[in-house]
Amino acid sequence: MNFDALFTDQIDQLKADGNYRYFAELERKCGKFPRAANHVEGEKRDVTVWCSNDYLGMGQNPLTIAAMCEAVQRTGTGAGGTRNISGTNHDHLLLERELADLHGKEAALLFTSGYVSNWAALSCLGSRLENCVILSDSGNHASMIEGIRHSKAKKVIWKHNDVADLEAKLRALPANVPKIVAFESVYSMDGDICPMREIVEVAEKYGAMTYLDEVHAVGLYGPRGGGISEREGLADRITLIEGTLGKAYGVVGGYITGSAPLCDFIRSFASGFIFTTALPPAVAAAARASIMHLKTSNDERTRHQAQVAKLRAGLDRAGIPHMMNESHIVPVMIKDPVKTRMLADYLMQEWDIYVQPINYPTVPKGTERLRFTPSPLHTDADIDHLVAALSHLWKQCAVSHAVA
Amino acid sequence: MNFDALFTDQIDQLKADGNYRYFAELERKCGKFPRAANHVEGEKRDVTVWCSNDYLGMGQNPLTIAAMCEAVQRTGTGAGGTRNISGTNHDHLLLERELADLHGKEAALLFTSGYVSNWAALSCLGSRLENCVILSDSGNHASMIEGIRHSKAKKVIWKHNDVADLEAKLRALPANVPKIVAFESVYSMDGDICPMREIVEVAEKYGAMTYLDEVHAVGLYGPRGGGISEREGLADRITLIEGTLGKAYGVVGGYITGSAPLCDFIRSFASGFIFTTALPPAVAAAARASIMHLKTSNDERTRHQAQVAKLRAGLDRAGIPHMMNESHIVPVMIKDPVKTRMLADYLMQEWDIYVQPINYPTVPKGTERLRFTPSPLHTDADIDHLVAALSHLWKQCAVSHAVA
Repeated sequence: MNFDALFTDQIDQLKADGNYRYFAELERKCGKFPRAANHVEGEKRDVTVWCSNDYLGMGQNPLTIAAMCEAVQRTGTGAGGTRNISGTNHDHLLLERELADLHGKEAALLFTSGYVSNWAALSCLGSRLENCVILSDSGNHASMIEGIRHSKAKKVIWKHNDVADLEAKLRALPANVPKIVAFESVYSMDGDICPMREIVEVAEKYGAMTYLDEVHAVGLYGPRGGGISEREGLADRITLIEGTLGKAYGVVGGYITGSAPLCDFIRSFASGFIFTTALPPAVAAAARASIMHLKTSNDERTRHQAQVAKLRAGLDRAGIPHMMNESHIVPVMIKDPVKTRMLADYLMQEWDIYVQPINYPTVPKGTERLRFTPSPLHTDADIDHLVAALSHLWKQCAVSHAVA
Repeated sequence: MNFDALFTDQIDQLKADGNYRYFAELERKCGKFPRAANHVEGEKRDVTVWCSNDYLGMGQNPLTIAAMCEAVQRTGTGAGGTRNISGTNHDHLLLERELADLHGKEAALLFTSGYVSNWAALSCLGSRLENCVILSDSGNHASMIEGIRHSKAKKVIWKHNDVADLEAKLRALPANVPKIVAFESVYSMDGDICPMREIVEVAEKYGAMTYLDEVHAVGLYGPRGGGISEREGLADRITLIEGTLGKAYGVVGGYITGSAPLCDFIRSFASGFIFTTALPPAVAAAARASIMHLKTSNDERTRHQAQVAKLRAGLDRAGIPHMMNESHIVPVMIKDPVKTRMLADYLMQEWDIYVQPINYPTVPKGTERLRFTPSPLHTDADIDHLVAALSHLWKQCAVSHAVA
């Protein structure tokens, strides 16, 4: 059997649909963010990155750099085992304590990535709580969807951010089955924020556990960077808060926080936690330095929001439609994969602006977009340059100016 | 509903069965491996680690340390995005080229962990190849089992390392369905090595694709560290070779290698690859330095095998039964979770020897064991000390001397 032919057939279909993905090859340059070098066919040129999830530039903060190098010199480059078999290091436990404190929870548990934390925790909860039903927001991330699916628990999808629909679905379930309401605070592709208080209240009313993904909010919102749940004073009413160390904190890894029995349960039973090499202690040390800094410093958050507001204002002045939301994510809808790629290519080639075209399966077909993520390190001149580039393209390409 | 009570119930059952896991808290000390500090109730003392999967001590090799620190200073602490959205860095591509070369394949693809590489690749292949059947060795790792299960493909389990059983199961399947034979080279808990040539030949006979997990072999076997498939001259006949950067290479991360269409297929469709932040470029740089070193240096492999042979000889002289195998893994079967933990506790408390008790679900119930992994950095004196400790305990505890 010619397996390569089977693979090529499916790749060709992606290409025909305009959904094939070309990765931009970058060289991040410490101290220069959001500037990076883009490699194309052996040539390198400097571009401004407008689509990074290193939202605050903490990946190049001198504190995180110093913490990581110090820990590499002290502990080496790896953990040397799974958490159970020689892989638990003092730096992991310090980080877990820091994370528990960040969300005001008893305990925290570290995973190799945010994807794995969602997948492992939800598949463990759904499979081990007898007769469990998971009520999942229709906009939830792939990692949650795959975790729920893997659990084989009954899944009920409620309309995105629609509390009335959630309540109707909770009401329809028997009182005595364990229920988990799974949702996110900031949805990464539309940038909208959930009605958290209403969700928590309806979950409490029906005795459901709440599972909250804060990956696009931790470090960015709340007086100590505890996310939307901290900002809204709701963290203590949420059963499990999941987050990442790879976005605003600028490193890599994921985690959950919650009660001590909850974290011990996931620690003891989740396959994706048990059977994998622990993160390097140096990664844990860098993440902890980043979290500690953002617990006390608000400068990055203030400047971040200011630059987001400036970009939105600039786009408004130029008549470029963008999706309104209350977060730091600025989507400009194009609604066609080929056009989206074409615009991104022009921006890179003609304007040294790097924004990745966002296509299926990251967003539904027909909602392709450019997704801009201004950081505190984007200057006003960077914003002006981006707005000028988009204005020019909007005129040239005759893309619809109708509000998305 | 009291969720904490539900969690506690299941934890209590684990404790009653002797299967609850206590993680040893270590401080790895660069330059001192296999020595590490063990934290117990605020006290620290130095112990010798005998169960690390940093098999060659590459996690503290000056080359990997230097490469990681250099790259942190140059690129920062994180990748800043998924591979598709601003997260592909030059260091990732250099590493992927190195990995493709290591196994003599066209292409390679990097994942956040070995667990994720198996889970994502197998779930993608099994779900997207129409009518696919996966023939899985009964001893396969949890990450492969979960990937196959998640794919919802038809799964046929063949008896561990039994080529006749594999052939019978291949023969029983229709000729025209895609078949994947999934197996490992070195099985981590028994340390046995698969009959690779026979497996490859029978797979070829029935037109099946071969999926080989080499995580406990890469870096350790073969003239360039390409694993058992390199040692046996079979790499070019295996469709997909999966490996890890977190064991012999001393860092963290996983990968697959294979044809360009195969890697492009997984890159384009695997959820666990697409929707996750890329590994930090500095992790990629450290792993690459480690691989490059072990491609040309055989000193670590030679000394590794010598120390493994010395430990086995010492155990034989002392009459301590250990499982025979051709690898570097030395299991001493205890066959009871409570006794295994008791022995491990004595070794730690009385002899400053750290070996984690291995219990369910890592091994089947009733096959609990101590699993020793000598490294090139364990001295002859370390081995003598371990053998003396075990001899002492064997007499004291009256554990059966019958060969396991």
